[in-house]
Amino acid sequence: MTEKVVPLTDLQIASQATMQPIAEIAEKAGIPENAVEPYGRYKAKIDVSQLPAKSRDGKVVLVTAISPTPAGEGKSTVTVGLADALSKLGEKTMVALREPSLGPVMGIKGGATGGGYAQVLPMEEINLHFNGDIHAITTANNALSAMIDNHLHQGNVLRLDPRRITWKRVLDMNDRALRKVTIGLGGPAQGVPREDGFDITVASEIMAVFCLATSLQDLKERIARIVIGYTYDKEAVTVRDLGVQGALTLLLKEAFKPNLVQTMEGTPALIHGGPFANIAHGCNSLIATNMARQLADIVVTEAGFGSDLGAEKFMNIKARRGGFAPDVVVVVATIRALKMHGGVPKSALGDENVQAVTAGIANLAKHIDTVHAFGVKPVVALNRFITDTSDEHQVVLNWCRANDVKVALTNVWEEGGEGGIALAKEVVGLMEEPTQFTHLYDVEQSIHDKLTTIVQKVYGGEGVRLTDQALKDLQQIEKNGWETLPICMAKTQYSFSDDPKLLGRPDGFTITVREIIPKLGAGFLVCLTGDIMTMPGLPKTPAALKMDIDENGNATGLT
Amino acid sequence: MTEKVVPLTDLQIASQATMQPIAEIAEKAGIPENAVEPYGRYKAKIDVSQLPAKSRDGKVVLVTAISPTPAGEGKSTVTVGLADALSKLGEKTMVALREPSLGPVMGIKGGATGGGYAQVLPMEEINLHFNGDIHAITTANNALSAMIDNHLHQGNVLRLDPRRITWKRVLDMNDRALRKVTIGLGGPAQGVPREDGFDITVASEIMAVFCLATSLQDLKERIARIVIGYTYDKEAVTVRDLGVQGALTLLLKEAFKPNLVQTMEGTPALIHGGPFANIAHGCNSLIATNMARQLADIVVTEAGFGSDLGAEKFMNIKARRGGFAPDVVVVVATIRALKMHGGVPKSALGDENVQAVTAGIANLAKHIDTVHAFGVKPVVALNRFITDTSDEHQVVLNWCRANDVKVALTNVWEEGGEGGIALAKEVVGLMEEPTQFTHLYDVEQSIHDKLTTIVQKVYGGEGVRLTDQALKDLQQIEKNGWETLPICMAKTQYSFSDDPKLLGRPDGFTITVREIIPKLGAGFLVCLTGDIMTMPGLPKTPAALKMDIDENGNATGLT
Repeated sequence: MTEKVVPLTDLQIASQATMQPIAEIAEKAGIPENAVEPYGRYKAKIDVSQLPAKSRDGKVVLVTAISPTPAGEGKSTVTVGLADALSKLGEKTMVALREPSLGPVMGIKGGATGGGYAQVLPMEEINLHFNGDIHAITTANNALSAMIDNHLHQGNVLRLDPRRITWKRVLDMNDRALRKVTIGLGGPAQGVPREDGFDITVASEIMAVFCLATSLQDLKERIARIVIGYTYDKEAVTVRDLGVQGALTLLLKEAFKPNLVQTMEGTPALIHGGPFANIAHGCNSLIATNMARQLADIVVTEAGFGSDLGAEKFMNIKARRGGFAPDVVVVVATIRALKMHGGVPKSALGDENVQAVTAGIANLAKHIDTVHAFGVKPVVALNRFITDTSDEHQVVLNWCRANDVKVALTNVWEEGGEGGIALAKEVVGLMEEPTQFTHLYDVEQSIHDKLTTIVQKVYGGEGVRLTDQALKDLQQIEKNGWETLPICMAKTQYSFSDDPKLLGRPDGFTITVREIIPKLGAGFLVCLTGDIMTMPGLPKTPAALKMDIDENGNATGLT
Repeated sequence: MTEKVVPLTDLQIASQATMQPIAEIAEKAGIPENAVEPYGRYKAKIDVSQLPAKSRDGKVVLVTAISPTPAGEGKSTVTVGLADALSKLGEKTMVALREPSLGPVMGIKGGATGGGYAQVLPMEEINLHFNGDIHAITTANNALSAMIDNHLHQGNVLRLDPRRITWKRVLDMNDRALRKVTIGLGGPAQGVPREDGFDITVASEIMAVFCLATSLQDLKERIARIVIGYTYDKEAVTVRDLGVQGALTLLLKEAFKPNLVQTMEGTPALIHGGPFANIAHGCNSLIATNMARQLADIVVTEAGFGSDLGAEKFMNIKARRGGFAPDVVVVVATIRALKMHGGVPKSALGDENVQAVTAGIANLAKHIDTVHAFGVKPVVALNRFITDTSDEHQVVLNWCRANDVKVALTNVWEEGGEGGIALAKEVVGLMEEPTQFTHLYDVEQSIHDKLTTIVQKVYGGEGVRLTDQALKDLQQIEKNGWETLPICMAKTQYSFSDDPKLLGRPDGFTITVREIIPKLGAGFLVCLTGDIMTMPGLPKTPAALKMDIDENGNATGLT
């Protein structure tokens, strides 16, 4: 192995992989031929109405992480590698993941299909457009916007107040110049002037609705409930008032079918839906998870960012809606992130620092506690990086053993499923043990109580403070009778608190909620804390500058 | 047939049709299996690099029309029906059509897949999202916009003047409120404020480039040449200067593969690309037309609006670029449109009016003359509507015979290919005769000469007048050495002149060019006349209000 001087890129590894025809993957997954609608040779959409009657309730393994570094801790990579390892152990396994958003792919993040020898394939197509689902959501979102502005232009029968329209346009793009815009300029023939803004598509409520609906009819009913703004009398106006829920659902009809692909080792994978983990709930579609549970004995799935964000919402929003409980929670940790929580600056994360790892474990410990608070069993996946030292690893392994926490070193980036066998064995072992899953709060509790529960039990803080604006929002929500919805926290992923600089395991802090946005279609109340960005910007040197096609028409530079 | 009281809608007819698996259609077309990438069961993308070596040069039948009514004259329907009729006669035939834009589908126009028993299938999928090509073009267009605004935000090394950025954003939507906007508001972190606007995607130069490129490499080279604005020193800035031609081409890589579908009678059809026929050249992609010519003996294709718009550009832009000549031109006429040209108001178009038909024939006569001017043989397809009377038909048939113009009554909406047999026989007959195709102008002529040629020989007007702005544009274009490109006229489709109210066969008019926009990527100079709309609006009661899904998840209300 000493000759391997220049490591291959993810795209190169993916391009060299041999894929199985999607019909074979479908057959392996137990999907009948008439349910498979191929999209190219290695992707398919699945018509869930053609699946065989439910014969099992697959167990759910949720992959989350400690509070991440900006580069991420390889959660998708571990998810894929763990699934391949479970397949190797003979378990009937499926992966369920979110769809990558193009904006970050063109910007800084690169792809979101795992890495190294633990990827879902075809990597390039999944990262670029995939089967068009996000484009369909963009279109439905913006068709609604066009209908709203057309309503204003054509006489405004509903008396919609242009200053109180809350529905924004979206693009699947990192484009900061669209955050705040004025539209309808140019005179009476060009619409009604008003302030507007664009979010990234994955922040659209249509995306959240798409990922929580259980059927096309449910999707339509939820879309109808979306609040798009308020009248001059401050009465809520919904999509139903505009009468376009049918058209918007029709635009989503094909997209709503889960997408089947494969891991590099041939494990069937569903990739469907991808809501933001800060403004929304951050996990793949409920319909895909349900489908995977129907077909496989073990479903490995992922929720965005750390256990304080994606996993909390997975438990309190998605699992509640879906009526299931996760059986095991994998907490991905990296030596790099632990060192960061131990106080090491970004530039020195590659240097050995056993003391910093030891200090940083406080963050991991809190995530473990959070998982326990839900009555679920955690296992730590220590995701190996090339700069790690074995002394650093030993710190984590020792701490876990001393605290009776299951742990496994994983090396799936380099070794694929083989590098996840130890983790898979721990997961299978934990599945034998009973869980006592509990949503941490009851939706009937007051909003203040629900918020306090999340802050205390999930974040480890003291309590919650509402700004004047949030109190005003609260009043409006109570007036409308919307208070019995679950909470969807919008918070920085870098800290348990709402201050991204408070690393490790902060305590004694209060979370400030500055706005509460009712999302009646999604069925939750978004509570905004800190500066949450719903439209990212591009960096000085965007990833797009490296992307290209070669003389043979093959993609290059996609990471 | 007397029981058939309520006629079926196009969607109902389409839903009841039996489709052949796309693999069978591909086989019938002579496309090898390894070139076929299925998208669902009845659509595929074709990898043209896998096609067999060229063994023929299929003849090209171009379908155009007289100056249309707002509802259109059924050009797509005749195109599909004619192809089915040719297939019935034993000719190896393929259809090449544009992809429908979603904006008009949601707005007023409804679908664009033909009608009645002369449709391309699957109707619903083709009209809604299809295989995602237009979404890919939207994304590439807006990725470029994001890169431009990011360049301004990150220091503006190129010294791009924010007031002179000509590249606009796009959406595949009818959304008048986005025609004129201001972006980058909200302070220094939200980009640089400037005026901007959104066009509909089919008006994007990326769409025009996509439809004129002969290969992925050619596509990339053309994208690199696109002018996106000017510096403070008024020097042109191109995509190459920003360095993103590779990334934009990569975003279009899958979309660039032609889409294979079928007509209701099983004739293979390629549907690929769909540029506006006013601001752009209005015909399907050159790569699809080339592919169809390689596989079939006869290719039936369509260009937007009347012979003064789509057909003129087909001859002068597309055929010039592609190095081929159309063999026969079908001019679709309807009794309704002829009556309109004969002075009948819209409300009375359903009433018999032989005199008005006679008067309206002047419009048809000019379109015939225009086709002759290109040295090509025309045949009139009189597309039968239920309100027509046989006396009205007789007027047209008699005039054609008296003037030695081939003509056939078509009834493909009701009868499919059977209703186009007479037309097909005329077409086959004309193909035996030699043509002397000529582009009407040479690209080396001056812009003024090229414009004058089009106005005199195609429109039947006297000459051209340039506004001060257009003269300024001309100067700039000559200074940059761009004057040897062909002209792409942007003109109303309702009249040969630039005044939509001048129906029939106007003469003595002058065309006023108010702006000349260089499209270096597409390789033509857009000359704007009149008020050309590049972003349509929605009507008071958009078509979307009728669209829905039923309890079984089937589409309803799509027309």
